[in-house]
Amino acid sequence: MPETFDVGLLGHGTVGSAFAELLDARTEQIETTTGLRPRLSGVLTRSRGDFDEILAASDLIVEVMGGVDPAREYVLRALRAGKHVVTANKQLLSRHGEELWAAAREHGVQLRFEASVGGVVPVIRVLQETLAAAHIDRVTGIVNGTTNFILSEMARTGEAFSSALAEAQRLGYAEADPTDDVNGADAAAKMAILARLAFDTPVHLDQVSYEGIEQITPDDLEYAREFGLGLKLIGTAERIGHPTNEGRSGISVRVHPAFLYPGHPLASVAGPFNAVTIESPAITEITISGPGAGGPQTASAVLGDVISAMIPPASTPETSQRLPVVTDVASAFYLHLDVDDEPGVLAQVAAALGAHGVSVKSVVQKGLGDQARLVMVLHRVPERQFMAALDEIADLGFMRSRPRFIRVIEEEFGV
Amino acid sequence: MPETFDVGLLGHGTVGSAFAELLDARTEQIETTTGLRPRLSGVLTRSRGDFDEILAASDLIVEVMGGVDPAREYVLRALRAGKHVVTANKQLLSRHGEELWAAAREHGVQLRFEASVGGVVPVIRVLQETLAAAHIDRVTGIVNGTTNFILSEMARTGEAFSSALAEAQRLGYAEADPTDDVNGADAAAKMAILARLAFDTPVHLDQVSYEGIEQITPDDLEYAREFGLGLKLIGTAERIGHPTNEGRSGISVRVHPAFLYPGHPLASVAGPFNAVTIESPAITEITISGPGAGGPQTASAVLGDVISAMIPPASTPETSQRLPVVTDVASAFYLHLDVDDEPGVLAQVAAALGAHGVSVKSVVQKGLGDQARLVMVLHRVPERQFMAALDEIADLGFMRSRPRFIRVIEEEFGV
Ligand SMILES: NC(=O)c1ccc[n+]([C@@H]2O[C@H](COP(=O)([O-])OP(=O)(O)OC[C@H]3O[C@@H](n4cnc5c(N)ncnc54)[C@H](OP(=O)(O)O)[C@@H]3O)[C@@H](O)[C@H]2O)c1
Ligand SMILES: NC(=O)c1ccc[n+]([C@@H]2O[C@H](COP(=O)([O-])OP(=O)(O)OC[C@H]3O[C@@H](n4cnc5c(N)ncnc54)[C@H](OP(=O)(O)O)[C@@H]3O)[C@@H](O)[C@H]2O)c1
Repeated sequence: MPETFDVGLLGHGTVGSAFAELLDARTEQIETTTGLRPRLSGVLTRSRGDFDEILAASDLIVEVMGGVDPAREYVLRALRAGKHVVTANKQLLSRHGEELWAAAREHGVQLRFEASVGGVVPVIRVLQETLAAAHIDRVTGIVNGTTNFILSEMARTGEAFSSALAEAQRLGYAEADPTDDVNGADAAAKMAILARLAFDTPVHLDQVSYEGIEQITPDDLEYAREFGLGLKLIGTAERIGHPTNEGRSGISVRVHPAFLYPGHPLASVAGPFNAVTIESPAITEITISGPGAGGPQTASAVLGDVISAMIPPASTPETSQRLPVVTDVASAFYLHLDVDDEPGVLAQVAAALGAHGVSVKSVVQKGLGDQARLVMVLHRVPERQFMAALDEIADLGFMRSRPRFIRVIEEEFGV
Repeated sequence: MPETFDVGLLGHGTVGSAFAELLDARTEQIETTTGLRPRLSGVLTRSRGDFDEILAASDLIVEVMGGVDPAREYVLRALRAGKHVVTANKQLLSRHGEELWAAAREHGVQLRFEASVGGVVPVIRVLQETLAAAHIDRVTGIVNGTTNFILSEMARTGEAFSSALAEAQRLGYAEADPTDDVNGADAAAKMAILARLAFDTPVHLDQVSYEGIEQITPDDLEYAREFGLGLKLIGTAERIGHPTNEGRSGISVRVHPAFLYPGHPLASVAGPFNAVTIESPAITEITISGPGAGGPQTASAVLGDVISAMIPPASTPETSQRLPVVTDVASAFYLHLDVDDEPGVLAQVAAALGAHGVSVKSVVQKGLGDQARLVMVLHRVPERQFMAALDEIADLGFMRSRPRFIRVIEEEFGV
C-alpha cells in the first residue's frame, strides 16, 4: 500500500467540484509520478464539513471558496499548522498576500497560487521559477477572459457592449453579475499579484488603477480598424524611470482598454482567452496564452500546484508507458503538379486520388503557355493512401516533373 | 558571509560565456532570492580547465559544451558524484536521456534541461510541473528559430530559400553550417525530448521522422497565400489511436513543413521565434512563445534552472524592494470628438493639444450633416498633459458631447 497524501478541499463550487473530479480521474497517474496516493480528506461548503476536522486530516489544503473572509483565516490557520496551501483566490492574495506569504515562509510550507491569475496560463510559475533572478521590465496581460470575449465579439459583429455581454452570459463566459469583470477590478487584482512577483516589491490591490470596458462603443472599434488597431482590456505592470516621469523611478500597475498594433504579441489573442507577455533584457520576451477560466481549466492549474507540493522538483520519473511510435499517420496535403496543358488532366488526377480515397478540398489551376500548374489542397487521409495516389499520379503521361507536396494542418485544431 | 553555491561550467562558447556574464550580473539578486551566493568554481574548454578539479569544487555542473562525447561521460560522472546538472544539450538528451535521468534519480540529484528545447520558451517546466499529471494529447511546436526566420523571410519577400538562408546567416540567425537546422534534425531532437515528457514513454531521436525546408519554393508560399495558409516547420508529437490507424494505438513524433490555417495558435509566430502548443482535455491548450535561441536568451534559461536547483520551490521570498507605485505614466491616445461641422474646428483642437505638448499622429474626420466626428491617434505623452489638453478641448464651443479617449499601446513594443 503506497503512502497517502491527504488533500482538504475548501469550496465545492465551479472550481472545487471540477478539482474533486480531476483528482479522482488522475489518482493513478499522480501515484506513478509522485509515489504518493492523493486522497480527498474532506470537503467544506456552507452546508457541510468542519474546518478543524478537515485541517487535522490533511497534508495540504486547497482553498477554492473565494472571498476574503473566512478564506483568509482558514489559509492562515492551515499555514500555521504546517500544511501546504494551494489557492485560486486573487482577491485574497491581492489584499493580504504579504501576510500569507510571510506565514508560509515562517512555517516552512508552500503557498501556491497558479490558478489565481491567467486561467491555465502558467505565469506564476514562470515568474517565480524560470525568471527567478531575471530583471523584469514589464508584464503586459489580457487577464480577464470575459472582457476579451466581449471585445472580440464587438469587433467581429459590430454589436454594442450590452448585446455582446448578453452573448457572453448565454455562453457561460460571463457571470450573472459581471460587474467585477467588466469594470476591470478582477484584472486589477491579478495585475497586483503579477507586479508583486515581477518587481519583488509589495503591491496592494488599492494601488492598482483600473478602468473597464463598459464605455466602449462599436464606433470605437470601427475607427480602430481604420487605424489598423485592435482593442483589448490590457493590464500593465512596468518599471517607470523615464525623463517624462520627472526622474522619479518606480513602478506603474494599471488596467485599461487599449488599442494594440497588429505586431503586438497580444494582438492576436481573441475570444475568452488570457495571455501574458513578460519582457526582460536577457530574454527579450515570453508570451503565454490559453483559456482564461472555466472549472476544469482552473482545477487543472490547482492540481499542477498540488502535485508540485507533493514532489521534489525536476526529477524526471521513470517512464511508465511503452507506447509504440507510429509512423503511418493521417494528414491533409497541398499538392503541386506541373502538367502539360491538355484536356482531361484534372479528371485523371482526380480519378487517381479518388481511387485511393483521397478527396479534394480546393484547386487552383494556372495556364503557363503549353503547360499548366495544378495546385490543390486535399482532405485529411492516411499518409499511405496519399503516397499510393501520388505514385500513380507521378506515372501519368502529362506530368512534366515530379509531383511535390506539403502537409497541411487542418482547421479543427483544439477540437 | 553567506554560504556559497559553486557552479562548474563546461563550455565557454556562445551560451557558456553569456551564462558566466549573466551569473556575475545577477549574483546579488540570486543571493537575495536563495540565501546562497552563486560562484563560478571553474570553466572547462578544449584549451583550459580540468574536469575532475572542477567537479570536486562544484555543487552543480552546467553543461553547455554540446555534442555527445565527452558531454555524456561528464554529465554521468557529475550525477554519480551527487552533483546537480543543468544542460542545454538536446543531442545528448534525445539519444541518452533515459540513462541520464535514471542516474539522476538513482543519486537523488536534479538534472534540468530547460535550455535544450525552445530557447526561452519554458516548455520543459510547464510539461514537468504545471502539467505533471495531465493527460496530454498533442504537442505542436515551432522549435527551430532559424527555419522559422527563413520561412518568414521567404513569405515576406518572395525570395528563394538560398537567399533567405544567406540573409539569416548575415543576421546571425543561422550558423555557418546550417545543415542540422534546415534539414529538420535539430527540431527532431527537441521533439523527441518533448514527446518523452508529454507521453511518459521512452522516445529516441532515431524514432522521430523528419523533413526539412530545403525543397520549399517561393511558388509554394505564393499558392499558400491564395489558399489562406501560412507555412512553418512544425514538430508534432501526438497520441494516435484513430480508426484510420487500423486501431493501433501509440504515438507519432515527426517534423515536416506544414501549412497552417490563420486560426492556428502557431500561425502568427514569425521571425526567429519558437512557440509550443500543448493540448490536453482538461486545459484545452496552452501556447508559449519567445525568441528561439541566442547566447543571452539560452543562458537565461540555464540560470533559471540553476536557481531552481538552489532553492526549495514555491516559497515566495520576502520583498527586497520598496518601489513607489507611480500613477502619472505616459501613453499614446485615441481621441474621439463629436463636433459641430464648422470651419476652424480641427485647428482649435490641434492648438489645444499643441499647447500641452500633445502631437497628432493621424486623423480621420467624417461629416454627419451639420455635425462631424473627429477621431485622432496622438503620440505618446505624459497622461497629465493629455488630460489638461482634454479639459481645454471639452470647453470649446463646438463640442457636442464629452470627448472620449482610449489609450494606445505603441508599436515599439519589446524595444
Ligand atoms: N470559476 C472560475 O473559472 C475561476 C477561475 C479562476 C479562479 N477562480 C477562483 O476560484 C475560487 C472559487 O471560484 P468558484 O467559481 O468555484 O466559486 P463558486 O462556484 O461560487 O464556489 C464557491 C464554493 O465555496 C463555498 N463557500 C463559499 N463561502 C463559504 C464559506 N464562508 N464557508 C464555507 N464554504 C464556502 C461555496 O459553498 P456553497 O456551495 O455552500 O455555497 C461553494 O462550494 C474563487 O476565488 C475564484 O476567484 C475561479
Ligand atoms: N547557441 C544557442 O543559441 C543555443 C541555444 C540552445 C541550446 N544550445 C546548446 O548549448 C550548447 C552549447 O552551444 P554553443 O552555441 O554555446 O556552442 P559553442 O559556441 O560551440 O561553444 C562550445 C563550448 O564548449 C567547449 N567544448 C566543446 N567540446 C569540448 C570538449 N571536448 N572538451 C572541452 N570543451 C569543449 C568549446 O571549447 P573551445 O572554446 O575550446 O572550442 C566551447 O567553449 C549546445 O548543446 C547547443 O545545442 C545553444
